[in-house]
Amino acid sequence: MLTAHTIKILQSLDKKKFRQKYNLFLVEGNKTILELPNSNFKIKEIFSTEPNNFLSKDVQFTQITENELKKISFLQNPKDSVAVCELVEKSEFIDKDFQLVLDGIQDPGNLGTIIRLADWFGIEQIICSEDTVDFYNPKVIQATMGSFTRVNIVYCNLVEYLSKTENINVGTDMEGENIYHFEKPRKINLILGNEGNGMRDETEKFLHKKISIPRFGKSKSTESLNVSMAAGIILGQMFSK
Amino acid sequence: MLTAHTIKILQSLDKKKFRQKYNLFLVEGNKTILELPNSNFKIKEIFSTEPNNFLSKDVQFTQITENELKKISFLQNPKDSVAVCELVEKSEFIDKDFQLVLDGIQDPGNLGTIIRLADWFGIEQIICSEDTVDFYNPKVIQATMGSFTRVNIVYCNLVEYLSKTENINVGTDMEGENIYHFEKPRKINLILGNEGNGMRDETEKFLHKKISIPRFGKSKSTESLNVSMAAGIILGQMFSK
Repeated sequence: MLTAHTIKILQSLDKKKFRQKYNLFLVEGNKTILELPNSNFKIKEIFSTEPNNFLSKDVQFTQITENELKKISFLQNPKDSVAVCELVEKSEFIDKDFQLVLDGIQDPGNLGTIIRLADWFGIEQIICSEDTVDFYNPKVIQATMGSFTRVNIVYCNLVEYLSKTENINVGTDMEGENIYHFEKPRKINLILGNEGNGMRDETEKFLHKKISIPRFGKSKSTESLNVSMAAGIILGQMFSK
Repeated sequence: MLTAHTIKILQSLDKKKFRQKYNLFLVEGNKTILELPNSNFKIKEIFSTEPNNFLSKDVQFTQITENELKKISFLQNPKDSVAVCELVEKSEFIDKDFQLVLDGIQDPGNLGTIIRLADWFGIEQIICSEDTVDFYNPKVIQATMGSFTRVNIVYCNLVEYLSKTENINVGTDMEGENIYHFEKPRKINLILGNEGNGMRDETEKFLHKKISIPRFGKSKSTESLNVSMAAGIILGQMFSK
């Protein structure tokens, strides 16, 4: 049974404040839910319109109606199941050789796409400034297509972190070195800035190298590439060598 | 004055049927509207909450209220102006050396992103199957960020076209040649398939070469890249040489 009280709590989980209050977030769709047991994320309860096909007996399972699913899903077209999961508190982390560092990414779709890219390229860790959009946001979780279970995502004070890391900090800049000629350092932080304003000045101070994607179109009116597309093209290039 | 009749017509332009009936589509935001005079698209009328800053005296201009703008805009957060433009009928086209060919792309955001990518890489022409989403769709126009004014987009019977073109037809396939080792032909059609089903069998028959983007992440659960991201990475790589 899905009580009105539970519905109210689950519906509140699109807001960071309530995810933190209840220490919960939602994962939707059997495909992604089935990947959770191989990750650090613990499922508290599953609500599904289908009978229990999830193997584990440890997880509380409740079969619900399509109508009930609509009430708790954040999707326009709800899938089969919703898993209520516990947040994982991460504070300590050790640098990996190839990391993404996000300085104030705001759009959930962009963060989700970047997490999915990291997973594709086998990048294990993303370090986010404290004001980067929360990856437990249901739109981010959805856009990652399950990749959030395979990439370690940490939030920290970027200035503090960048002043200590031994990786080479590389960021994009219109005047930067052409990515097609750029020699990737062995230990690298690829830093991506906010959608509208780019990187903060205090982050830029820590850059060791600047790179740019050349534009081949001749019109000066052409808009810069979106941050997640730029990330894809840069990663595609860096992994080509 | 914005009459109830005009509002009704403009509101109907999110549907292809009505765009074709009235031979009209909408372009929103001064930034993109100012690029129209340099393109093939003819503005019929501009509605703006601001006084007329558009230099041309030939275009009919109507100042409207924020409230009226909300009624005719397709954006969640309407910008300053809406331009009502005439569709351009295109049937004849000549092959360019580097073209994108779209086989049933359905998502307006994907088509918009691909048009924007083409503009970035200086690709002048995109050839779409007849069932590809209409690029005059307001979501596509919006996602191109003005790039639709600089890329020639044509719709045609793909099978007929592919049987005649002298460009080398290249498509993606899991078993295709690694893009990092692929030698780009001098005259190329890069073919991109539908989001869910990929390329149609009858399109695949015309492929001369197949390519793939290697996945560096080790998990087999990782989803394929989204079609527009794949296009970005492939183009990034093809233009590196």
